[in-house]
Amino acid sequence: MSIQERVLTGDRITGKLHLGHYVGSLQNRLRLQEQYETFILLADVQALTTHFDKPKVISDNLRNVALDYLSVELDPNKSTIYIQSMIPEIAELTVYFSMFVTVNSLRHNPTIKTEAMERGYTDMYYGFLGYPVSQAADMAICKATLIPVGEDQIPHIEHARKIVRRFNDLYAPVLVEPKALVGQRLEGLDGNSKMSKSMGNAIFLDSSPEEVQQQMKRAKTDPGRVHKHDPGNPDICTIYAYHEAFRPDECSEIREGCKRGTIGCAACKQQVTAAIHELLEPIREKRSYYEQRPDVINEILAEGTKRTQKIAKSTMDEVREAMGINYLG
Amino acid sequence: MSIQERVLTGDRITGKLHLGHYVGSLQNRLRLQEQYETFILLADVQALTTHFDKPKVISDNLRNVALDYLSVELDPNKSTIYIQSMIPEIAELTVYFSMFVTVNSLRHNPTIKTEAMERGYTDMYYGFLGYPVSQAADMAICKATLIPVGEDQIPHIEHARKIVRRFNDLYAPVLVEPKALVGQRLEGLDGNSKMSKSMGNAIFLDSSPEEVQQQMKRAKTDPGRVHKHDPGNPDICTIYAYHEAFRPDECSEIREGCKRGTIGCAACKQQVTAAIHELLEPIREKRSYYEQRPDVINEILAEGTKRTQKIAKSTMDEVREAMGINYLG
Ligand code: SF4
Ligand code: SF4
Repeated sequence: MSIQERVLTGDRITGKLHLGHYVGSLQNRLRLQEQYETFILLADVQALTTHFDKPKVISDNLRNVALDYLSVELDPNKSTIYIQSMIPEIAELTVYFSMFVTVNSLRHNPTIKTEAMERGYTDMYYGFLGYPVSQAADMAICKATLIPVGEDQIPHIEHARKIVRRFNDLYAPVLVEPKALVGQRLEGLDGNSKMSKSMGNAIFLDSSPEEVQQQMKRAKTDPGRVHKHDPGNPDICTIYAYHEAFRPDECSEIREGCKRGTIGCAACKQQVTAAIHELLEPIREKRSYYEQRPDVINEILAEGTKRTQKIAKSTMDEVREAMGINYLG
Repeated sequence: MSIQERVLTGDRITGKLHLGHYVGSLQNRLRLQEQYETFILLADVQALTTHFDKPKVISDNLRNVALDYLSVELDPNKSTIYIQSMIPEIAELTVYFSMFVTVNSLRHNPTIKTEAMERGYTDMYYGFLGYPVSQAADMAICKATLIPVGEDQIPHIEHARKIVRRFNDLYAPVLVEPKALVGQRLEGLDGNSKMSKSMGNAIFLDSSPEEVQQQMKRAKTDPGRVHKHDPGNPDICTIYAYHEAFRPDECSEIREGCKRGTIGCAACKQQVTAAIHELLEPIREKRSYYEQRPDVINEILAEGTKRTQKIAKSTMDEVREAMGINYLG
């Protein structure tokens, strides 16, 4: 690749991160930060689309999510972590984009459509309807070239590309059309809702060993398997999904043993629980290091935000010049 | 009144101002600036709702409209003139408001409804649909208390008040609900579309005496009046509308004379043309003074924008604190 790629990822701040996030995106980001210039967005403004009436959830969790990042070893020297609400240029670009994006194109956006049906909205909030516009602004403002997504999110990137392309056609080609970077891992995970939803979010990255133990105790195995030597069905077993995620090398062995009835559920569970303990132990340690140093976290966030602000300002200068609305020199 | 009132007015930058604007709003603003702290918004961003594909119209006319203001003696020491696109806080507040404003409430906004019908939109631009949201942000960001409007625009102010009230209820009462200031003059004018549309916009504030002469020559009188002594109908005569606007003290006399057939159309026209010349002469002079001093105009705009930025920043600080999303001290 001849151009310098820039990756943008991030999370809406609606709670702490859990094991589902770890497998679904954090692991991937750890790889990406080694290959690319990486930006990670703490999306507190977009969290308001669903949490405008409970902003405390957002403010309570912003630093938690930053801690989650740091504790899994996302490296602030490689990944620029920044706060969305502190980049007013994103709001500005959202407003400029919104002038030429039609309501119909937004209503037809698959994510808007699905969410509207899922949540049973009889009506939609204006900001929620505009989610694709603000996402396009997120990407364009920092000139991201690559957006890691799951297979199902590709239409979102397509929509953003379309908006950016329209801007470039209308005014001048100053913005970058981002490309989707479809991750293997993400795909797998998105197909596996057990992992990211019911199971994964029960175990947070900051869970204590006791909490992990408790959650694992409650985790469902194949309910049809009553006796130790009954053959089991790993495909309907939550524990097996954990094996796939955390002990990928051993999981074919587990699969065999389960199907043949040569491994007991208790032992099977115990093995993956141990793997999770092993995974979380250093994360917990790193976390406690940062927890004792709130000033360091603040500095990391301030530094990342400042770095992004600089890029955002320069992008907006180009945007204004392209549109010819740069006045007073 | 115990609180300090602050007036907000302004214009979407879609062209130069004409006599219709003078009678419809500029005259009113001249009175207002003597009574109140006054802010005047050069709405270049909102101009994009209809002009996103011709931004040159906006950039070409921004300074023209500022010149129009200064030449009619809007006084930068009394009226803070500022540029919308240079206050990013307006975009930020628009985004925050948009989280809790429903699409339906926007579709039912009378102005959106009317415009959508008038322009035959089969679809609407997202930014256009959000016009009421951005107007609410305009008002709230500078803590305007009074918005001069015509009778027909009252629902707009009501919508803005509702949005501000909702914010205050959701978070903390830091924003001001603006009140409509319904001007006599404005009402009269809004009922008189001849003035603001077909007639008024033919004569710009910077028209030369020759251009005025030419436009007046073309102005329609009562077409039923063929002979000088025929009785005329001033209510269907454009010239009579001019009399009402520019020679209010003499217009009952003209009305009588026209109806009785004691005054000829040529003489009648001549009288009001003279009045318009008289009105425009000092405006033209003042304009040429400023035209020769582009630095002074830039300084006035920079100064007004800076003053507004300061207020906008402080409002956004309060907004963030109210929402609890003020991080990093
Ligand atoms: S043996 Fe393991 S994979 Fe099979 S049902 Fe029991 S817990 Fe699940
Ligand atoms: S006399 Fe004056 S008001 Fe009457 S029709 Fe003629 S121009 Fe119009």
